Amino acid sequence: MTDTHLQQGQTIAERLNPGLRDALSAKYDAMLPGMADSLIEWAYGHAYAREGLDLKTRQLCTVAALTALGGQTGPQLKVNIAHTLAAGASPREITEAIWQMAVYGGMPAAINGLNAAAEVFAEKGIAPDQG
Amino acid sequence: MTDTHLQQGQTIAERLNPGLRDALSAKYDAMLPGMADSLIEWAYGHAYAREGLDLKTRQLCTVAALTALGGQTGPQLKVNIAHTLAAGASPREITEAIWQMAVYGGMPAAINGLNAAAEVFAEKGIAPDQG
Amino acid sequence: MTDTHLQQGQTIAERLNPGLRDALSAKYDAMLPGMADSLIEWAYGHAYAREGLDLKTRQLCTVAALTALGGQTGPQLKVNIAHTLAAGASPREITEAIWQMAVYGGMPAAINGLNAAAEVFAEKGIAPDQG
Amino acid sequence: MTDTHLQQGQTIAERLNPGLRDALSAKYDAMLPGMADSLIEWAYGHAYAREGLDLKTRQLCTVAALTALGGQTGPQLKVNIAHTLAAGASPREITEAIWQMAVYGGMPAAINGLNAAAEVFAEKGIAPDQG
Amino acid sequence: MTDTHLQQGQTIAERLNPGLRDALSAKYDAMLPGMADSLIEWAYGHAYAREGLDLKTRQLCTVAALTALGGQTGPQLKVNIAHTLAAGASPREITEAIWQMAVYGGMPAAINGLNAAAEVFAEKGIAPDQG
Amino acid sequence: MTDTHLQQGQTIAERLNPGLRDALSAKYDAMLPGMADSLIEWAYGHAYAREGLDLKTRQLCTVAALTALGGQTGPQLKVNIAHTLAAGASPREITEAIWQMAVYGGMPAAINGLNAAAEVFAEKGIAPDQG
Repeated sequence: MTDTHLQQGQTIAERLNPGLRDALSAKYDAMLPGMADSLIEWAYGHAYAREGLDLKTRQLCTVAALTALGGQTGPQLKVNIAHTLAAGASPREITEAIWQMAVYGGMPAAINGLNAAAEVFAEKGIAPDQG
Repeated sequence: MTDTHLQQGQTIAERLNPGLRDALSAKYDAMLPGMADSLIEWAYGHAYAREGLDLKTRQLCTVAALTALGGQTGPQLKVNIAHTLAAGASPREITEAIWQMAVYGGMPAAINGLNAAAEVFAEKGIAPDQG
Repeated sequence: MTDTHLQQGQTIAERLNPGLRDALSAKYDAMLPGMADSLIEWAYGHAYAREGLDLKTRQLCTVAALTALGGQTGPQLKVNIAHTLAAGASPREITEAIWQMAVYGGMPAAINGLNAAAEVFAEKGIAPDQG
Repeated sequence: MTDTHLQQGQTIAERLNPGLRDALSAKYDAMLPGMADSLIEWAYGHAYAREGLDLKTRQLCTVAALTALGGQTGPQLKVNIAHTLAAGASPREITEAIWQMAVYGGMPAAINGLNAAAEVFAEKGIAPDQG
Repeated sequence: MTDTHLQQGQTIAERLNPGLRDALSAKYDAMLPGMADSLIEWAYGHAYAREGLDLKTRQLCTVAALTALGGQTGPQLKVNIAHTLAAGASPREITEAIWQMAVYGGMPAAINGLNAAAEVFAEKGIAPDQG
Repeated sequence: MTDTHLQQGQTIAERLNPGLRDALSAKYDAMLPGMADSLIEWAYGHAYAREGLDLKTRQLCTVAALTALGGQTGPQLKVNIAHTLAAGASPREITEAIWQMAVYGGMPAAINGLNAAAEVFAEKGIAPDQG
């Protein structure tokens, strides 16, 4: 009857990042009609909302991948570090997932990832050793 | 007294992939003296053997990142899918972690990752829907 | 009433590559439930089916990007070269879009892209200078 | 008689971005003798000045590829969005080419590309929905 | 009077890889007119033929970069390992430059690079420990 | 008796960048216990401290690779340009190694690399044509 992937996506996006859909819509829909719903339906409805893997592990996988992919994903890495905290991961689990990427994406990628985590932790008032 | 990172790395490498160090040594040490121990010490001793994140999640993070990084890591992706099964993940958890990377590394990366998983599952006699 | 992005995607996928959805379903849905519909809805429904840019130019953009991204997208590059011919581009337009990527993705990426085009042209009986 | 690729390149560079060669020369030739002419001859003379694909489509292909390649090409993406407007593409054609890259380069690459377009449009006084 | 970058490029290409220009022309010029000369002029005339850095070091830099870039450059990595031997580097200098890239491009990139070197050395009858 | 790779790494890191280990420790060890020693042991002990390739060439290889890899390694590229000067390379050798990467990593990567070099040279009071 309705676009359930969009609804499922919106539910999970709201849990991880309240107001995300409206913020995307305000920023992008004028230049690209329908962008916000497309993103929510695809990224959250067709990926994070799926069964088969728990949300916290999904988020740690995303943090690892964005770290390995490097600079082009810098802003999204910070957003996803916040989402990963919201999904129940500890700061230490996040820095461990980032550091491990030094093996696969190289040391610069890992260091830039740790810097991103340090910024998010500072914004949230989390002490570095509070893992 | 001794190089404990190397020992810790060898313990975990042996658990995930028995005989890995000797296979690396036979293949690479003649052309690059000490390569096998360097790899074991670094990748397994300084990463997988660390505390703060469980081994299964570490392996799922690696599968996600290698999927997102794409082709250059194809052979290592297959090796790590096998390691991830050895660390206790289900086939479905692995394909879910791979698919989610379509959002971050693009659809080609996710499809190639699923193809790698299908090959590993076939080699191990795991049915595709056995997740 | 219904998931129109999926329907729109299926229409355009069928035009570019008849039978694509069923082929994806047969290959991937057992290991990842719903994968075929997710891919059709997202890639074709939320991208290629959009207004604002003609299909032939969309396909040439995809060929350019897959060339620049390089090896991880090799199989998808060949598929999309065929889709681009189906969307009305000439072989020469395709090789020109590929070659230009030498400036942005480097010479190896461009050469590998030309090799992919040569394979597709040969499979379709298109002479190299038939552009 | 003369280096025609350099001349052809300079003609097209001047059309897309008046004064580009001299700006490059002033910035780079002291640290790397001959850099400006090499760039103009190669990128514009051996790529954009070629027959076989129209300039507007060439520019849209470049915008797509730079979007997919991501952060390392950020400044060049903005320059090429401006070049693409100069080659006759509408803002909407540009945002469509960028968005489509979410399928191939991932969502972060597409979002960063849209942000780059928004900055260029703002600098030129183009309303977001003016496509 | 003449296109000296093309001539300079052809001289150095001939030194590193006799017959390269004609092989490129036979393979690519029908599908992309002028490709062979463009490549020789650009890659060899505007890069390798320059003063300011010796040819052997230039080749080792290329091997390092192609290793770090990974899979998309696999075939070109093997070609350049052969060019680097032709420029006077020892096998060991080559494997050292490759291995160091584990720090920057990740372990998979380094392993794939060592595998490429092993193949080139085997084709040329160079023993692995002959560095 | 002791961890010689760590000691060897610390010796060479101190030569290239006095105080590096302590700076890393102050910045990262609280959020990731042992990070500084792991980095020094791996990057400097298992790579730069190795025999078989001289330090200056190693550094030029690193500058080339970080240039080709692009944006994600921007901060590390600047650090390594400084290390490469410390290892005895001339500014011109560095800009030549960077420019050559236009062939492999694309023109944007090379331009961004030259910009990074210009910043380091300016910080050190090196005139652009002082190569």
